Amino acid sequence: MARRFTIADIAAAAGVSKGAVSYALNGRPGVSDATRARILAIAAEMGFVRNRAARSLSVASAQAVGIALRRSARTLGIEPYFMELISGIEATLSAASFGLTLQIVDSLDAELEVYRRWWAERRVDGILLCDIGVDDPRLDRVADLGLPAVAVGGPVQGARLPAVWHDDAEPCRDVLEYLHALGHRRIARVAGLPHLLHTAIRDRAYAETAAGLGFASVTTVHCDYTGEESARVTRRLLTAPGRPTAIVFDNDVMAVAGLGVAHELGIAVPGGLSIVAWDDSPLCRLTHPALTSLTRDITAYGAQCAQALLAVIGAEPERHAAVRCRPAELSPRGSTGPPRT
Amino acid sequence: MARRFTIADIAAAAGVSKGAVSYALNGRPGVSDATRARILAIAAEMGFVRNRAARSLSVASAQAVGIALRRSARTLGIEPYFMELISGIEATLSAASFGLTLQIVDSLDAELEVYRRWWAERRVDGILLCDIGVDDPRLDRVADLGLPAVAVGGPVQGARLPAVWHDDAEPCRDVLEYLHALGHRRIARVAGLPHLLHTAIRDRAYAETAAGLGFASVTTVHCDYTGEESARVTRRLLTAPGRPTAIVFDNDVMAVAGLGVAHELGIAVPGGLSIVAWDDSPLCRLTHPALTSLTRDITAYGAQCAQALLAVIGAEPERHAAVRCRPAELSPRGSTGPPRT
Repeated sequence: MARRFTIADIAAAAGVSKGAVSYALNGRPGVSDATRARILAIAAEMGFVRNRAARSLSVASAQAVGIALRRSARTLGIEPYFMELISGIEATLSAASFGLTLQIVDSLDAELEVYRRWWAERRVDGILLCDIGVDDPRLDRVADLGLPAVAVGGPVQGARLPAVWHDDAEPCRDVLEYLHALGHRRIARVAGLPHLLHTAIRDRAYAETAAGLGFASVTTVHCDYTGEESARVTRRLLTAPGRPTAIVFDNDVMAVAGLGVAHELGIAVPGGLSIVAWDDSPLCRLTHPALTSLTRDITAYGAQCAQALLAVIGAEPERHAAVRCRPAELSPRGSTGPPRT
Repeated sequence: MARRFTIADIAAAAGVSKGAVSYALNGRPGVSDATRARILAIAAEMGFVRNRAARSLSVASAQAVGIALRRSARTLGIEPYFMELISGIEATLSAASFGLTLQIVDSLDAELEVYRRWWAERRVDGILLCDIGVDDPRLDRVADLGLPAVAVGGPVQGARLPAVWHDDAEPCRDVLEYLHALGHRRIARVAGLPHLLHTAIRDRAYAETAAGLGFASVTTVHCDYTGEESARVTRRLLTAPGRPTAIVFDNDVMAVAGLGVAHELGIAVPGGLSIVAWDDSPLCRLTHPALTSLTRDITAYGAQCAQALLAVIGAEPERHAAVRCRPAELSPRGSTGPPRT
């Protein structure tokens, strides 16, 4: 993805001060006509001018980006993922003097209504679309609004919005091959919400990899990302006959809850049960044993999403770019080992 | 605290439709002069008019509330407290058609600069001041700006801003009396940042209660609310001679880390060590044993803070009210019991 050019970049390229660039771009006195022409040419080359010009012609810029989340207060509080994502987004926006506006909504219609209102009242210059679903109707609806937007997740084939996403399939292959190499043959997975795109991608990747490695399947139970549901599901998995020797959890809160259930049932970790978490928040290193995890830098991911949106807000040509981020990588810790047989 | 009156309340009191109230308040046709006068009188009585009038005379209302946080991305991600607080704030703002603007800052000066800019550009109608410190300089500086604001924390004696706060002293007494009754005599505390007001209040309450109960003191080690620091501190406490039989942690993330250290050292919980957490996020029920905790409804607290700020934004007379919320209550769970001697 092309980096978004700042006034400082234009100043450096033109060999003038940032103040001079600002005067030139805003049509204010303070620079000679020759310098102004040179600055505008460089800015145009960098894809900067159209935006500024467009902006000054339109309603005043909101200098704000919006996120509407269809999640409950409780889920947000317990999930390190969202605050890490938002921190990364915020740091980038802040550096570009953009604010971040948050709204929690309770339905798809309410969410789309928020976007319509924000855009009609120019409360935001663009939005980040989170929790991308399988065949997500919001992708088209938001594109129809003409509201600059970036999908946080993907890939979203044929979509009219750019997406910033991780490959979710590769880490699934990595983790199954790792557990297989340790000797595990009965592996279960406590998965996230099945309608979310990344859950569906992981579902398929685990099924294909399990088939390729020659073991029957990965028992998958979908739940809602909360520790409560994960504990219930894990307890059921571990008390049924032929219990798994390893469980992969789709986020870290569910993995911590799973470890709690193993302690409760007196099952040693990793001897009696290996545990792998997704989304390596500090939580994974607070437990004993520390949790083996699929590690992504979620704060950096948030920053990339914000950068992509600023590019969309600032420069039309980049509007349809998709950004593929580094996939999660396996961080082996004390919660995984060979099964004790 | 007085509830903020809505158009619906005025409509009910005047026996007219909400539309009629809106016409009357906004000086638009659609209601008779007599009805308009009646509606305005009722609205004035409810403290509604001044605000609307003031607002329509001033720059357009931002319909937004701002929060600037001097916290790192990592701390925010791992702390359920903030997302729960923000969820509660957001739910209330949302119902009043207010947005929430978030900004992370890295210094006091940057924070004050954000407030100045927000207010000068009317990007927000008011702010919530978080992480109130001992002798917090922001209380006066924000009051000087004339920016409507509410302190999230307190009590702040002599301050020119209203505060919404919990009594932090009472739960400290409760927990020490409880541990004393169980038979604990060597109690330690892994505390939060010492410059924060609520930490100082707890410091004093523990010291006074310990003296009152006739045991020497509560060994207090301050740290930064992260699990990493808590783990280091807990390891030191538990490996020194005369180790404590109970530890109280100032938040839940630190308590989970402390439990991990006890597991690591092979110290049984609660037989060898009792653990009490503050801020009862679902995290406290995911561990084994579940953590005894000082429980507050942080989402409800966030809602109260937002309501107080909306009252300040809407109606001058309520500007200096302080709201004292229910103190945290002890929720005994599996992590506390009599010390095994």
